[in-house]
Amino acid sequence: MYFEKIDSLNDLKKLSIEQLKILADEMREVLLLKLSSHGGHIGPNLGTVELIIAMHYVFNSPIDQFVFDVSHQSYVHKMLTGRKQSFLEARHYDDVSGFTNPDESEHDLFCIGHTSTSISLACGLMKARDLRQEKNNIVAVIGDGSLSGGEAYEGMNNVVEVGTNMIVIVNDNEMSIAENHGGIYQNLKLLRDSKGKAECNFFEALGFEYFYIENGHDMNELVTTLKKVKDVEHPVVVHVHTIKGKGFKFAEENKEMYHAGPPFDRKSGKYIYPLDNPESYPAVTAAFLMEQIKKNPKVAVLNSGTPGGFGMNAEWRKEAGSQYIDVGIAEEHAVAMASGMAKNGVVPVLNVYSTFLQRAYDQLSQDLCINENPAVILVYLASVYGMNDKTHVGIFDIVMLGNMPNIVYLAPTCVEEHFAMLKWAMTQREHPVAIRVPAKEFISSGKEDTTDYNKLNKFAVTRHGRDVAIIALGDFYTIGRDVADKLKAECNMDVTLINPKFISGLDTALLDSLKKDHKLVVTLEDGVLEGGFGQKIASYYGTSDMKVKNYGIKNSFPDRYNVEELLIENGITVEKIAEDMEKIIG
Amino acid sequence: MYFEKIDSLNDLKKLSIEQLKILADEMREVLLLKLSSHGGHIGPNLGTVELIIAMHYVFNSPIDQFVFDVSHQSYVHKMLTGRKQSFLEARHYDDVSGFTNPDESEHDLFCIGHTSTSISLACGLMKARDLRQEKNNIVAVIGDGSLSGGEAYEGMNNVVEVGTNMIVIVNDNEMSIAENHGGIYQNLKLLRDSKGKAECNFFEALGFEYFYIENGHDMNELVTTLKKVKDVEHPVVVHVHTIKGKGFKFAEENKEMYHAGPPFDRKSGKYIYPLDNPESYPAVTAAFLMEQIKKNPKVAVLNSGTPGGFGMNAEWRKEAGSQYIDVGIAEEHAVAMASGMAKNGVVPVLNVYSTFLQRAYDQLSQDLCINENPAVILVYLASVYGMNDKTHVGIFDIVMLGNMPNIVYLAPTCVEEHFAMLKWAMTQREHPVAIRVPAKEFISSGKEDTTDYNKLNKFAVTRHGRDVAIIALGDFYTIGRDVADKLKAECNMDVTLINPKFISGLDTALLDSLKKDHKLVVTLEDGVLEGGFGQKIASYYGTSDMKVKNYGIKNSFPDRYNVEELLIENGITVEKIAEDMEKIIG
Repeated sequence: MYFEKIDSLNDLKKLSIEQLKILADEMREVLLLKLSSHGGHIGPNLGTVELIIAMHYVFNSPIDQFVFDVSHQSYVHKMLTGRKQSFLEARHYDDVSGFTNPDESEHDLFCIGHTSTSISLACGLMKARDLRQEKNNIVAVIGDGSLSGGEAYEGMNNVVEVGTNMIVIVNDNEMSIAENHGGIYQNLKLLRDSKGKAECNFFEALGFEYFYIENGHDMNELVTTLKKVKDVEHPVVVHVHTIKGKGFKFAEENKEMYHAGPPFDRKSGKYIYPLDNPESYPAVTAAFLMEQIKKNPKVAVLNSGTPGGFGMNAEWRKEAGSQYIDVGIAEEHAVAMASGMAKNGVVPVLNVYSTFLQRAYDQLSQDLCINENPAVILVYLASVYGMNDKTHVGIFDIVMLGNMPNIVYLAPTCVEEHFAMLKWAMTQREHPVAIRVPAKEFISSGKEDTTDYNKLNKFAVTRHGRDVAIIALGDFYTIGRDVADKLKAECNMDVTLINPKFISGLDTALLDSLKKDHKLVVTLEDGVLEGGFGQKIASYYGTSDMKVKNYGIKNSFPDRYNVEELLIENGITVEKIAEDMEKIIG
Repeated sequence: MYFEKIDSLNDLKKLSIEQLKILADEMREVLLLKLSSHGGHIGPNLGTVELIIAMHYVFNSPIDQFVFDVSHQSYVHKMLTGRKQSFLEARHYDDVSGFTNPDESEHDLFCIGHTSTSISLACGLMKARDLRQEKNNIVAVIGDGSLSGGEAYEGMNNVVEVGTNMIVIVNDNEMSIAENHGGIYQNLKLLRDSKGKAECNFFEALGFEYFYIENGHDMNELVTTLKKVKDVEHPVVVHVHTIKGKGFKFAEENKEMYHAGPPFDRKSGKYIYPLDNPESYPAVTAAFLMEQIKKNPKVAVLNSGTPGGFGMNAEWRKEAGSQYIDVGIAEEHAVAMASGMAKNGVVPVLNVYSTFLQRAYDQLSQDLCINENPAVILVYLASVYGMNDKTHVGIFDIVMLGNMPNIVYLAPTCVEEHFAMLKWAMTQREHPVAIRVPAKEFISSGKEDTTDYNKLNKFAVTRHGRDVAIIALGDFYTIGRDVADKLKAECNMDVTLINPKFISGLDTALLDSLKKDHKLVVTLEDGVLEGGFGQKIASYYGTSDMKVKNYGIKNSFPDRYNVEELLIENGITVEKIAEDMEKIIG
């Protein structure tokens, strides 16, 4: 048992190569124990056990600085740098985040959760090191999947320009989350097939010296090569061929399913919670999109490297054929491509997580909105009910898309509205349209939505009352409804309830009409308050007598939060809102 | 005289190669006539005369579809596609924009003004063509400078993935706006030096078939090669070696100065308006940064491909040495690199235009703000007084940066405040800080700004009054002051005047104190109203009796506007605001 005895990196450095191999097996077992009962990123961590041990064996962290791309492969790094307990003891499992985190350790340089950023961040460390006339190694670890992102390419270009010590380790497991897509992957294959000897070498073309490690689980090969590149005085790429999910049969066999997930049964290889809920927005939307694909050869469905989250499993993708496009982790390209497709008469539907759509802000503005091409974007997990790591929080989309000219941004409150909006978006040819797919719960109103969405910015009044109106957007509509119910039940107040549906514009006629017999308008939105939907309404009423109270999340990066607590912190509970309202209207 | 007789592309196609050469000379002369008296993009257009003639000679636009990257090299294309008059007749010069524009012609597919987008947009056209089972050629023209942008790389990757007809023409004039930076440029040089024969080929590594044109001004070579690739059934790159500014001696000799500019004298090669105004924010800031560089080896100044606009000419850059970094047109990398440098104890100051900073939205959020590294960003031309093409308007930054957690965004109103803020930003180690460099006019207050900017979100009350307070941000501070002056002069009203200085947070103590003896707060901001600074104040006062009136620019992409007209349209004149205020407070 070596792992239990390793309390510092010095302890690690005392081991022999043979002992490192045993250590790797032990650490993989620890990983599997935690992952199977806790969940997390499975494939990426199992696949880099030997690599990360070898890195810490050869280099001298934190003097030598490691930057892990997307950092979901950093568990072994954490286990070796003072956070062993969080992998050995169940009660400490959640002491560490799933990503590198400078608050946890000086061995973690950055909080990283989006892909393709490691080389640029490391390039900054590199240049600063040079200006400070220091001599440490800078090591960026990036997966083959992350190489499809433009920032990685920009980083590589600039590392070569700086020209001094930098070791880019390309962890090539032949997979992104799903399969890889893009020209670069032909070259990686050529390099693997030729054992790194092919003349046509993407990395050499960019100016890197290139090394290849055929077996990324062979400790000898890893240590030998890393020792060779340590203290090198120019940028090198070490291309390491690994197996994603290495050492856990089910993860090796189904790499996509085992990229990340909840707790699982090690014997059967089954997740303990079923992943596919047929009554979920991703599932019903994917089914709807498949119908559209079958009906119309000019419908195309795009995503950028995360099809699984949108109900598009391997079978679905096969069935969609050439009408399915995965651009790799390349959101900028995805948005621009969708704009180009719409321009040439096709109906592109881009599926993307809110947090990653941020990566295409300028493409949304320039490539899409300025050109007003009728592409459709489905924005997933744009909600406090979405992913809750601070790098993955999806609550900034209203600020981003809701304030962008020429795009229609819609917020359905139930599945019927969702489909009515989607159908409209896919048939109209006037506007780019984005839909904020609900993330809180799957709600069916049971009645068809016959709204004509060509009438832009028309809010729906769902209850007519007086004195107070609640404008409750998307996922928070039910909170507004519950407040109205409570005020009716407890104070016999008839509150006007409004489902605005449109995020990107105001129903000024309705807002004006409320002035007649309302004193207070309350807005509720499932996103950041500042720069959001409600503040436009406050501004609109600014010179009138109408009082306005906006509810949303304080501008911040909430991290690993409990939703209920976050809502309480932001005053968003039925009780608190009802109480505030009574106070305000006196 | 051929050019005058060419009224359609069919007329062009009737010419012989020899006649095309004469046509090129004629068109270059027409260009020089217009450019010298009107200004515009000089080098890029002079350098692509033969290339674009050859493209239209060989291909069949608009059935074959051309996408011009950044599209500042599209003048010859416009001259050949129905817009000749706008180059021949001075009174029609402004009938066309400086960029491709679908409103002008069906030969223009997109409005394009940001770099590196062409291949992705063309990839969308390509995929749509395939789904529609059509057969036309898609041609993207991209300069070597634009190849440094990540979106171009994402596009190339995906073009190869689609795998059908696509012709990427790389116009290699060995220049970006300034010199090129990045590993890719070593490969382009190798390819040029080997006449396209080098084994190590970036484009081939990505999966393109590759063609090289040694003399991009040789009509024979151009036409022959383009004919060869026409109707190709897979993606090809045609690497064309051209001379930026070709045919105008001064532009060939000083490629950077003649990238774009105002009218110039063809004989002396001098611009008619002097470019370097020593009393301008770029000039004084560059001088200040040079002082800092000299004093402190840990200060570094970054930009992404546009040093000239920030007072950093070739001499300045040489003097700054390794403390100057041009990352190429790679804003994403620039922000991430700055974050990395700040993390390793260096003081990075990134200079960037507002419109291009949009390209790094996610890097600002993830690489910089989540990590709270103390990088400094100088945001230029964030103003209605900045660039006025709709692709270059710089008025969206307040929405973007002002609503981003953890960054301090500052708006100076005079040069003294600008430097006080910049000095503070460069010494503090707590926050990323951005400064919205004034764009309207160079104002010196004549007195030192001794504000302690560590006290975040403290607004400055510059006049104490009652009833009405004007909070006037940055460049619009003088409008607020003039309104106050007018109300004093005409109505003897003593208006409170506030210079908020901080964009990214509210001085809630001050806002609360205004409730005592003020009825109306007016906000003024030189940016888009929706999601901006003023709406936060409207929201803050939403449940109080305070009236709030927000002034800013309507959410839109204003194009080639006259500033005064734009302000009038948005109700932002001293007269209108004073009148509104009188009305509101009755």
